[in-house]
Amino acid sequence: MPHGRLITLEGGEGAGKSTLARNLKERIEALGLIVTLTREPGGSPKAEAIREVILSGQVKQHGPFVEALMFSAARIDHIDRLIAPALARGEWVLCDRFIDSTRVYQGALGRIEPGLLAELEAVTIDGLMPDLTLILDLDPTIGLARAARRRAPGEGTDRFESETLAFHRRLRKAYLAIAEAEPARCVVLDAAQPPALLAQAAWAVIRERLPVPQTA
Amino acid sequence: MPHGRLITLEGGEGAGKSTLARNLKERIEALGLIVTLTREPGGSPKAEAIREVILSGQVKQHGPFVEALMFSAARIDHIDRLIAPALARGEWVLCDRFIDSTRVYQGALGRIEPGLLAELEAVTIDGLMPDLTLILDLDPTIGLARAARRRAPGEGTDRFESETLAFHRRLRKAYLAIAEAEPARCVVLDAAQPPALLAQAAWAVIRERLPVPQTA
Repeated sequence: MPHGRLITLEGGEGAGKSTLARNLKERIEALGLIVTLTREPGGSPKAEAIREVILSGQVKQHGPFVEALMFSAARIDHIDRLIAPALARGEWVLCDRFIDSTRVYQGALGRIEPGLLAELEAVTIDGLMPDLTLILDLDPTIGLARAARRRAPGEGTDRFESETLAFHRRLRKAYLAIAEAEPARCVVLDAAQPPALLAQAAWAVIRERLPVPQTA
Repeated sequence: MPHGRLITLEGGEGAGKSTLARNLKERIEALGLIVTLTREPGGSPKAEAIREVILSGQVKQHGPFVEALMFSAARIDHIDRLIAPALARGEWVLCDRFIDSTRVYQGALGRIEPGLLAELEAVTIDGLMPDLTLILDLDPTIGLARAARRRAPGEGTDRFESETLAFHRRLRKAYLAIAEAEPARCVVLDAAQPPALLAQAAWAVIRERLPVPQTA
């Protein structure tokens, strides 16, 4: 039975995740593989609807556990409708944010009891762990400045961009702690370098970690 | 494109929902139709895992909104994996508890803001409203006594059975309020009558509300 590969991209605001994802999609396609590019929260119609509710900020008042549950509900649909079927067809999936965003934003920063969050994650992904997670590491002062530049004039910040700099510093530390705890799955990349160099570094990691048979 | 029918059974503890569901399954199959019998919370492997977490009682401390979210996460998977595919194949689905349980147990009794719960429901079912909902109405003193009799010796009560009699009285009222507000979808049946008579009454409603073409 064919089984594709799931690569997730993680990191703070303005780290360059979506630019990198587009670049990697082209490189993987050049190998003759089919790639689905997706993102969280969202990625399926129902999950996108939940994304709207979360990012509007109206869920924040209910606390990080409720946010984690909303993300999990969206993730369940995203997996059911898009990720699992694509992998079953032998395709590759590139996902901009996945479980580590929940671990970091709601877990480490929301201070949810780790056991409860781990149980929720286990139920949500049901064994569908990413084959590779690229963590784009960046000083948050640079990342937030980049995120501000890409906003349209008059456009407001979303639920997470509007958090304090201290929040984004803790977020960076939490990502690095995950990478240290799960080196077989995670690789940290320096996201301060120019996008072209970042893409080359990411590509080298993918080629080494997820070799593609010559027959592909 | 074929489109089956979704019938949901609702009501308090010990009202006879699962016995009725099995009876109705046989009657619908006798018409030459394919029927899937399922239940909530649960109905798909991931949803059953969430069911375990909810019914263990460890979620209760986080309040009714968290419970509603857990039920919604389970429902999304149940719809994705079982209900929607069966309906798309033209099959009928009989579901023991569905959206009205969330409206009643978490909404009316948990006192969640109705707008928030309605928004969550809309996102969760994405238009998949039951074709028919049978509400099994019963004095809770009878229902709880029945639920107690069916428990194995030494088996404890679950999260909802262990609520007070006043809770179950409010639950009954909330179900009747839904039936009154949505008469096109809901029919109330007297669940105090013997199971065979209840099944006959339910069957008459199904035959009238959901006519099956002779060609089926």
